[in-house]
Amino acid sequence: MVPVDSGAAFHYPRAGMALNFQHLTSTKQLSRRDADAILQHARLMERYLKEGAQEPRLPGKILAALFYEPSTRTRLSFETAMLRLGGQVITADGFQFSSLYKGETIEDTIIMVNQYADIIAMRHPEQGSADRAAAVSKVPFINAGDGPGQHPTQALLDLLTIERERGKIDGLRIAMVGDLKFGRTVHSLTFLLGLYNGVRFTYVSPKELVVPEKVTSFLKEKDIAYEETDDFNAALACDVLYMTRIQQERFTDRSEYERLKDSYVLRAKQLKGKDVSVLHPLPRVGEIDPDVDALPNAAYFRQAKNGVLIRMAVLDMLLQRGL
Amino acid sequence: MVPVDSGAAFHYPRAGMALNFQHLTSTKQLSRRDADAILQHARLMERYLKEGAQEPRLPGKILAALFYEPSTRTRLSFETAMLRLGGQVITADGFQFSSLYKGETIEDTIIMVNQYADIIAMRHPEQGSADRAAAVSKVPFINAGDGPGQHPTQALLDLLTIERERGKIDGLRIAMVGDLKFGRTVHSLTFLLGLYNGVRFTYVSPKELVVPEKVTSFLKEKDIAYEETDDFNAALACDVLYMTRIQQERFTDRSEYERLKDSYVLRAKQLKGKDVSVLHPLPRVGEIDPDVDALPNAAYFRQAKNGVLIRMAVLDMLLQRGL
Amino acid sequence: MVPVDSGAAFHYPRAGMALNFQHLTSTKQLSRRDADAILQHARLMERYLKEGAQEPRLPGKILAALFYEPSTRTRLSFETAMLRLGGQVITADGFQFSSLYKGETIEDTIIMVNQYADIIAMRHPEQGSADRAAAVSKVPFINAGDGPGQHPTQALLDLLTIERERGKIDGLRIAMVGDLKFGRTVHSLTFLLGLYNGVRFTYVSPKELVVPEKVTSFLKEKDIAYEETDDFNAALACDVLYMTRIQQERFTDRSEYERLKDSYVLRAKQLKGKDVSVLHPLPRVGEIDPDVDALPNAAYFRQAKNGVLIRMAVLDMLLQRGL
Repeated sequence: MVPVDSGAAFHYPRAGMALNFQHLTSTKQLSRRDADAILQHARLMERYLKEGAQEPRLPGKILAALFYEPSTRTRLSFETAMLRLGGQVITADGFQFSSLYKGETIEDTIIMVNQYADIIAMRHPEQGSADRAAAVSKVPFINAGDGPGQHPTQALLDLLTIERERGKIDGLRIAMVGDLKFGRTVHSLTFLLGLYNGVRFTYVSPKELVVPEKVTSFLKEKDIAYEETDDFNAALACDVLYMTRIQQERFTDRSEYERLKDSYVLRAKQLKGKDVSVLHPLPRVGEIDPDVDALPNAAYFRQAKNGVLIRMAVLDMLLQRGL
Repeated sequence: MVPVDSGAAFHYPRAGMALNFQHLTSTKQLSRRDADAILQHARLMERYLKEGAQEPRLPGKILAALFYEPSTRTRLSFETAMLRLGGQVITADGFQFSSLYKGETIEDTIIMVNQYADIIAMRHPEQGSADRAAAVSKVPFINAGDGPGQHPTQALLDLLTIERERGKIDGLRIAMVGDLKFGRTVHSLTFLLGLYNGVRFTYVSPKELVVPEKVTSFLKEKDIAYEETDDFNAALACDVLYMTRIQQERFTDRSEYERLKDSYVLRAKQLKGKDVSVLHPLPRVGEIDPDVDALPNAAYFRQAKNGVLIRMAVLDMLLQRGL
Repeated sequence: MVPVDSGAAFHYPRAGMALNFQHLTSTKQLSRRDADAILQHARLMERYLKEGAQEPRLPGKILAALFYEPSTRTRLSFETAMLRLGGQVITADGFQFSSLYKGETIEDTIIMVNQYADIIAMRHPEQGSADRAAAVSKVPFINAGDGPGQHPTQALLDLLTIERERGKIDGLRIAMVGDLKFGRTVHSLTFLLGLYNGVRFTYVSPKELVVPEKVTSFLKEKDIAYEETDDFNAALACDVLYMTRIQQERFTDRSEYERLKDSYVLRAKQLKGKDVSVLHPLPRVGEIDPDVDALPNAAYFRQAKNGVLIRMAVLDMLLQRGL
């Protein structure tokens, strides 16, 4: 079989881009060099897709997608990425995940799945579950969200989207809007953008949902400029507007949810004359009016495509390490 | 890679059979020419399967099977069809379909899945959901059932079965029996058979479950002969006897269901000396006694095989359009 | 395409190893010659995996994994096996299995799935369901557990593990510990080990959970030596210690469960100086302390790998029959 990188059309600088870790559990483990390498590899993956019908990159390799809580979007994105690389997928999803109910530990499940799959992506409702899994896994392990903890491929696809929409990352003004207290993606992305130079943050939220101390202390430590406000207009003046959903399940008081959920709704008229790229981790439930979709500012559907590219890049880089 | 249609054994008249639509949401969008072309392609698909181990027709292509309500039969049939063509499948099924519960619109889900898959098949409990999905999908979209609405590949597989069992479609006498009011397959198949010449319908049901006005007005408008009766014997004199299940979930009054469900049960002795082909969309729950299974009249299990062939044909034709 | 067995590196004695049955529903149908042939083929499968990236053995073949009750471990093991052989998989799992709820018989489901797949693996909560399925299936059928009945590939993977850990099977002293009354794996494995010469059994359980009469009458009939005891130490003196989980769902009285579940817990200190191989069908819920995992005695995670090999062997042998 012809190696995938032997053709004239596709030069894959394998040695130069190897990651120096086996598992991806947190954006905090990434250096700027790592992040840049993954973004670069994601662009190669796009070219690989566009050239079509080539030799598969990961023939015979199996991804285990273990989703202890349902996340159709993330799961389908990982599965698509693996299939696009020519690999295969085994899936355990939500209600099907019977061993969980029989009291098996995460460690035992991961050791078992090591006997089946060549790489694992796991979503689990408990913070810290990903670290426990990675600690015992002999095959590469990717955290696909551990409760309120980390979701590094989401942050990486956000980063790729920002770079593609704006042409750079250094020096950008980034606004994050909505539920900044519980929004896992907001935290992960902040840590990742903190690797770049001169990025400034504007956090816009009702005061009940401000960014937590773990984020602000990170920013202070790194001496990164940021402001906190409840004024939506501050966000519209930035280069990037990262909208998030205010999740009903975070509220015990439903009336409090009803009062807050409409606090920050973006409509097309607000974007008139504005050069701001609008991102959203999706699904949205009203925070962005559909009249925004047709504007060039709307980057949130392109994010989904970038998600496949980032996951292809991470799967490919982690599995190529051993070759 | 050798093109699939270059071999001497397999001449695929690609240009001549292209469909002039991108999405398949309703049998009403089909002309007789379309229906004939799909049936012809299904026969080619059978030959493709029989010749075995050939070059895959759809290498690298991904079908997204989105089932907002469970339908194992239809889902497995679509997935089998895609795998038999050499493609791959990503699946979101029933309880797993988390975004639904997070309030995402069908439109947003479809736009997202467009970033993952090359073609989509969707089942959804709401009538009209398929049209909403097709309106925003840039990749081919197939309606796999939208509540009480349409389920075009079911009607096409019924049509293929009728043609194979009877050798023709024009001029046949078709009896439909059971729940004709809520039976989606009965409606879709009527519209499809209405494209052919001289087909006559006999609708047999309790009066609580007669065919709705949308069907009878279609028949009147097209000047198609039909009769309505509650006499099961009228059905046995036809060329085709299309049995349907009387679904408990359609009744609020359980005793009414119990009274009606045994109204029309087919047994082997009734078929003695009769040249009538028996179809059923399955699953059956007692409407056809298992003693019928061994008779040559019993076409309902061959229907399942025809379902794979029709879905192969539709997937292949819709994806070949862009080649 | 080059036949898989034409290469110099891989001699597969196809004719000599054909099984003389089409369906695998029970260990009771296996002769010693059958069991030996499957173990030998499993070792060939390991070699096939190690040599990597060869021609697929089962290209274009589809496994239907029908799981009427969830069993992620068994399902993923079967799916992995099929994918490793180059085949594909369609899956219906637990809550998704909608036709079940619509009252379809097992027979109708199997006849339908025959139209989709080349081979079927089914788990179902009712004893006898596997025999009903096999009776109507024209494609090879594998019982993946029928309630309190049989689960032959589990017993075969246990057998393979015993042989690999001990270098032989004849003459071994086998201890089985825990819930011997309801433990399906204990019964199936006993029947299978009964084919070998001079195997002796030590059954260790609280008296509420002793092996049932169907097992002891088998042992008496075959004149196989066995003892029953509630003394855990008797187990530690054997060559193989087969631990099982005491399942909460078997108890109506929770306090009775709480009292019994800790009766037989294995800890590392008990294994000091002991040459006994520890197996467990997994998942464990405390019967084996994690401090055992690092000992060479711990064979239970290697069992999972052997499970893939056994299922590859069975899938391959049953599908090769028709070639």
